Amino acid sequence: MSSKNRLIYLPLGGAGEIGMNAYVYGYGPKGKERYILVDIGVTFPDMESSPGVDLIFADIAWLEERKDRLDAIFITHAHEDHVGAVGHLWDRLEAPVYARPFTAYHAARKMGEQGKPEEEVVVCEPWPAMVDAGPFRVGFMPLAHSIPESSGLVIDTPDGRIVHTGDFKLDETPLVGEAFDPVMWAEIAKPGVKALVCDSTNVFSQHPGKSESTVGPEITKLVSEAKGMVVATTFASNVARVKTLAEAGVAAGRSVCLLGRSMRRMVEAGHATGVLEGFPQTISPEDARELPRENLMLLVTGSQGERRAASAQLARGKYLGLSMKENDLFLFSSKTIPGNERGVIRIINSFSEMGVDVVDDRAGIYHVSGHANRPDLERAHEIMNPDLVIPMHGEHRHLREHAKVAMSNGRSSVLAVNGTMVDISAGGQIVDYVETGRTYLDGRVQIGAMDGVVRDRIRMALNGHVLVTLIIDENNEPLGEPWVEIKGLPETGNSNAPLQDVLEADLEQLIMRADRKTLRDDDKVEEALRRETRRSANEEVGHKPEVTVVVSRLA
Amino acid sequence: MSSKNRLIYLPLGGAGEIGMNAYVYGYGPKGKERYILVDIGVTFPDMESSPGVDLIFADIAWLEERKDRLDAIFITHAHEDHVGAVGHLWDRLEAPVYARPFTAYHAARKMGEQGKPEEEVVVCEPWPAMVDAGPFRVGFMPLAHSIPESSGLVIDTPDGRIVHTGDFKLDETPLVGEAFDPVMWAEIAKPGVKALVCDSTNVFSQHPGKSESTVGPEITKLVSEAKGMVVATTFASNVARVKTLAEAGVAAGRSVCLLGRSMRRMVEAGHATGVLEGFPQTISPEDARELPRENLMLLVTGSQGERRAASAQLARGKYLGLSMKENDLFLFSSKTIPGNERGVIRIINSFSEMGVDVVDDRAGIYHVSGHANRPDLERAHEIMNPDLVIPMHGEHRHLREHAKVAMSNGRSSVLAVNGTMVDISAGGQIVDYVETGRTYLDGRVQIGAMDGVVRDRIRMALNGHVLVTLIIDENNEPLGEPWVEIKGLPETGNSNAPLQDVLEADLEQLIMRADRKTLRDDDKVEEALRRETRRSANEEVGHKPEVTVVVSRLA
Repeated sequence: MSSKNRLIYLPLGGAGEIGMNAYVYGYGPKGKERYILVDIGVTFPDMESSPGVDLIFADIAWLEERKDRLDAIFITHAHEDHVGAVGHLWDRLEAPVYARPFTAYHAARKMGEQGKPEEEVVVCEPWPAMVDAGPFRVGFMPLAHSIPESSGLVIDTPDGRIVHTGDFKLDETPLVGEAFDPVMWAEIAKPGVKALVCDSTNVFSQHPGKSESTVGPEITKLVSEAKGMVVATTFASNVARVKTLAEAGVAAGRSVCLLGRSMRRMVEAGHATGVLEGFPQTISPEDARELPRENLMLLVTGSQGERRAASAQLARGKYLGLSMKENDLFLFSSKTIPGNERGVIRIINSFSEMGVDVVDDRAGIYHVSGHANRPDLERAHEIMNPDLVIPMHGEHRHLREHAKVAMSNGRSSVLAVNGTMVDISAGGQIVDYVETGRTYLDGRVQIGAMDGVVRDRIRMALNGHVLVTLIIDENNEPLGEPWVEIKGLPETGNSNAPLQDVLEADLEQLIMRADRKTLRDDDKVEEALRRETRRSANEEVGHKPEVTVVVSRLA
Repeated sequence: MSSKNRLIYLPLGGAGEIGMNAYVYGYGPKGKERYILVDIGVTFPDMESSPGVDLIFADIAWLEERKDRLDAIFITHAHEDHVGAVGHLWDRLEAPVYARPFTAYHAARKMGEQGKPEEEVVVCEPWPAMVDAGPFRVGFMPLAHSIPESSGLVIDTPDGRIVHTGDFKLDETPLVGEAFDPVMWAEIAKPGVKALVCDSTNVFSQHPGKSESTVGPEITKLVSEAKGMVVATTFASNVARVKTLAEAGVAAGRSVCLLGRSMRRMVEAGHATGVLEGFPQTISPEDARELPRENLMLLVTGSQGERRAASAQLARGKYLGLSMKENDLFLFSSKTIPGNERGVIRIINSFSEMGVDVVDDRAGIYHVSGHANRPDLERAHEIMNPDLVIPMHGEHRHLREHAKVAMSNGRSSVLAVNGTMVDISAGGQIVDYVETGRTYLDGRVQIGAMDGVVRDRIRMALNGHVLVTLIIDENNEPLGEPWVEIKGLPETGNSNAPLQDVLEADLEQLIMRADRKTLRDDDKVEEALRRETRRSANEEVGHKPEVTVVVSRLA
């Protein structure tokens, strides 16, 4: 090992949250490292912290400034939190994108949708094949997760081998995609692993994870016993589950219909890339409408209660002419991601109003997780036997717990959240903190999370918005009185007079009393009007609203 | 039973949601019934559906119109979703409020805070004492829940007896408050029960509920083994739990300090009304600051991650000079109510960053529910053996499941959501649907949920808000060009020019092209400006914003 070169790890996203994965590895002399990026995902906005936002990306400004030294982007698998930002951010990085066929299919489509060059996506063979990227040699290590061709990365560097797990579980019978292969793992571990950079999502789950193969028999039993139509939802990308659900339908003598864009897309991608052999034949929504409901099974999008997905549309009434009725069955073959409970509960109650029986995973038999639980993580540590365990993909609490698990077994570990630069060659020392954050895709524009745009929206939502206009003439005299428009505030307050009238009267008083010096100064007039509007509104309705003042001067 | 009189049940709140309980019972000739109201609670707003709102009440307009026939308001217990609206809504109903001492203490305080007459709150003795209210005789039946003196109501009418459970569990060792008393239940059931109106919250929980007494030993063990400071949170109103926590602290040789307004208030109320005997002595925050942290246990508000509560303040740094450190322990002796996950997870991660170990109820040993589980509900049905089971207090899915449970045991049941009038004398027939809804307390003003105020706020939060002003002179000519102010939209869009400039340029073009007919008509000018603003903004940033146009005419 050269004393000048160093091997660094720098998460820009995914270490401190579950979502928007983006991990940088670098090798070279300090400040002159060559880089690769692993994953470039999104996270999803919510009304509480990011209203109106479409998608959230890691802030890649640090890497963008150094893009001349970025040799490659590797995508571990096709989940949105790993590949979702590639089309939006690629032109800020301009490096080739490497992925296995199923993942590459999605990455290329996302590039195309954003007008980026699809040919930059390079389809790779799995381990033991490897890709050269600057000082790195990288191999895709097949492993089991909840989407086809999910892969860990074997990252060989002049300083030794890193294994970056991506998302994984230790499933020896995953039904679709590659099984956990302990022999391959041991072979990869053999030369010695400097660092295992490892998924932390399920570190709080104490029992060994269950195999995807346990789910099928339970679902088949449930569907066979159902009287009316059966509708089931899961993540569309969980192609193995979609197949299990479809097979259960067929086993129960039902025709299967896929509803929702991402459901159809994923199955198409599965067929196109050859990962989905033996998927039962499906029928169109038009044909489904003609069938007796007891002969029908719908597989729909919207396991998280998303408002526009097929499940929510069925909950509101019809979707493509299909609707649910009393004694139909709706199955959530999925878990509710924290934060999505309200949306899911909303559709469950709508189905309840229709007399539809809803089955969820409360019993723990109609869904299994795609992530390694705590004992599985320990087993992975054991097989790889790395010098250093670096927990990734998790909130702070997950990373911390994962590090504790590793250390309790006598291993070295380092807790590195987004922006923490770890020198792996120096045994996991933290050598720098880099500014990171979130980028919002807002409509078609990328804005910084801290730019104030979203803050203003939240303030308007919490406080309402009052617009005040005043015309001042050539002699610095007000022309008429101030006008007020209100939005998002009660029409009448304590005095039982319209709020608008009360505000206009108070502002007129203010302007009548204002001296010429104030009236000559736009800033002063605006500040006085804003302050009086907030005071008066607060007195009247108990809210201090956001206020925008427009002073127009006749030149 | 007179052929003219009828006995009706009409939920105005609580049947179709968990929260804002408000149940009307009526007896008399159709349209001339005398009424009582059981409970008058609140529910809590959220950013998604009710941003900026302070509290949510049931819409009591129906009852208000008939308040001359309202004889009494009964409050079953002091939880906010049962008593929280009494101070806000009392003057719209003006009937005496009956409650047992601990509940009455809270009701009176709430009346006082809103300037309502505290003397309208009448303190009642428990069953077999009864209160006369028009044609009703009502007794408070002590039962176990998660707050002292929780009571069901025995409601005797000329048509027979109704038992309204309020919130309850079958706990024979509840530690604080009255135990489940099967002998009293049997005695109440003896004359025959026309209808059991019954809590549905936990109908999906399949196992018999655990007693409050199971929690203490586990918590004591946990606290005894803790090395640093221990901080525990639970609902302040769960006085039994607060006592258990305090006793665990004392048993571990720690001094106990209560933090958070509602925590102190509840304990005060417990002392004042004599329900809280033997509560350990507590120390002030000032004294707590002087103690070694391993000798200290804090009991704090904020089990649901509420931003202003003590727990969240500790997560952000200091609270009353106290702060958490590495190796301290934070215990959630509570469950997270669906919808509050994000807030709770936020503080867990903040504690994780501080190196604080967080223990929650994942293991199911540091918290028990205050509601009857499915087998307990079945037992309650069995003891009361009513002619009719009416599920209340639950979302639609809970009510439906509860009705199914009752019917599967051969009982009659009716699913009645808010606004459904049930004729109990006619065996549970639905006889009317009454308009119901939600009233928002917004600042100090009550507004209807459908008034559009909150809708406007949500739209501004999702889309941003653009203000357009234009002055038109005496000759119907524009004086200068339109001015634009933006709030909650990106500053620059696709063209890389400021959005404000792009909008102003496009609007100027529009106004230059506008004919005199349009310029003479305020509505037409406004509509044209609004439309062009939305089009132009959408092209520039991919958002169609909310737009407010102000046209000022020089007279």
